[in-house]
Amino acid sequence: MDIVRSVADLRARVRGWHARGERVALTPTMGALHDGHLSLVALGQHNADRVVATIFVNPTQFGANEDLDGYPRNEARDADLLSRGGCDLLFAPAVGEMYPPGFSTRVIVDGLTDVLCGAVRPGHFDGVAQVVTKLLNQAQADVAIFGEKDWQQLAVIRRLTRDLDIPTEILGAPILREPDGLAMSSRNRYLTADERAVAGTLNQALREAAQRIVAGQDIPSELAAARAAILGAGFASIDYVELREADTLAEVVRFDPTVPTRIFGAARLGRARLIDNMPVEG
Amino acid sequence: MDIVRSVADLRARVRGWHARGERVALTPTMGALHDGHLSLVALGQHNADRVVATIFVNPTQFGANEDLDGYPRNEARDADLLSRGGCDLLFAPAVGEMYPPGFSTRVIVDGLTDVLCGAVRPGHFDGVAQVVTKLLNQAQADVAIFGEKDWQQLAVIRRLTRDLDIPTEILGAPILREPDGLAMSSRNRYLTADERAVAGTLNQALREAAQRIVAGQDIPSELAAARAAILGAGFASIDYVELREADTLAEVVRFDPTVPTRIFGAARLGRARLIDNMPVEG
Repeated sequence: MDIVRSVADLRARVRGWHARGERVALTPTMGALHDGHLSLVALGQHNADRVVATIFVNPTQFGANEDLDGYPRNEARDADLLSRGGCDLLFAPAVGEMYPPGFSTRVIVDGLTDVLCGAVRPGHFDGVAQVVTKLLNQAQADVAIFGEKDWQQLAVIRRLTRDLDIPTEILGAPILREPDGLAMSSRNRYLTADERAVAGTLNQALREAAQRIVAGQDIPSELAAARAAILGAGFASIDYVELREADTLAEVVRFDPTVPTRIFGAARLGRARLIDNMPVEG
Repeated sequence: MDIVRSVADLRARVRGWHARGERVALTPTMGALHDGHLSLVALGQHNADRVVATIFVNPTQFGANEDLDGYPRNEARDADLLSRGGCDLLFAPAVGEMYPPGFSTRVIVDGLTDVLCGAVRPGHFDGVAQVVTKLLNQAQADVAIFGEKDWQQLAVIRRLTRDLDIPTEILGAPILREPDGLAMSSRNRYLTADERAVAGTLNQALREAAQRIVAGQDIPSELAAARAAILGAGFASIDYVELREADTLAEVVRFDPTVPTRIFGAARLGRARLIDNMPVEG
């Protein structure tokens, strides 16, 4: 697996594959790879002849008080995992290749970005929309794959891809979980052993609320019970526990099994901010 | 020349040409075509094997008090001109094809859009950036051609194309002028005969100021003289007469012949708002 660092080199490789009639999948990541990321690569292999992974810790999607500087970076390890996972090419640009002097263009997705993580992390999805627009246009892949753990991000990316007519198909990849239900995340490594022992509560509380809501229980009561369970397990605070439509992210006040619905949670545990979501369905 | 109205049909035609190894040029317009537009098509023919023109009066780039409803529309005449001008395909989408229900993505170019027309037409360049990003991604052309009469628009488009990594080369086409110097524009048809008789003053005043600035005359005095000449000819008001760097649009207070510099003017005459610009060079 080769590593390229310039858009020109990335494009030349993709152009060569396209000239041979090969289909190309893109799997954008911020590195610090885990099995969830490798499942994106596997889904890429299933949907294309070639898989390009990107590793770029995008500064524009981090807030001033967030973990940009401390975000885990280990390109050699990531490259080894990707290579063994069947990835054909790694694009790992420097910040200056992505945002050269004079850069001044923003991409804003209205509405979808106001709620959930967007309400807690102002500007985060503007940065995501900006960098994903760039990565998609840079790679010119046939399909791009994003994990469903960041469901809101996936919804924002689907929206901007459609709205800006970017000719790449967007695929979501199912969440990979640890045995206790904790969604795999690069930020799980921020957890101490004690914190890790209770981290699965976020998933368990959401799952229980989802099951009871499908069974007809009162939505506000179940969301409150989930919050209480999460805080009771030792989480420091809760950003949100909410029931929303899967596509529009509109709040759901009455459960309708014919409308795709998901439960979303975000909570803080030690240095980590953990998020999770799952379908609410019979 | 065929006319297509859906993005899917547009892409299918371009894909077919690309599959045959042909190079494709795009010339976006708002219709109401004049010889300036046809010169874009001619430049497209010079730079590509196929030329696609688009006609779309983009509502998102008009302000609330501007001339969206009254903007001249005559597709049959435009299609005839394009066909005779050597255009291969016309893309003329309805508003609903460009902005379907749920549409919610904006493209913002900071800095370049704050000055000149951007200062007088808030939101105008946001709409331009949005629709041009879409048109470029829709067409997947090799080169796209925009007139230098809208120099600031051209600078914004060059910036967003570079920043968002849109793989289309952007070319500027020289301004076409009437015998008295008036830059060709679809909005010139708003002028009465009396207004038309003095409209060339905008160009003449800018040209004179440019020559005197190159000759070393005082910049503020020359810009003031140009303003006085424009108002003296009967223009109702002036939006700006300014000297700026060609690429960054930074204001120029001391003329440096080694830095590409242009003089820009915008003024109101009857129902029309006329703009013009030209290089300031020895």
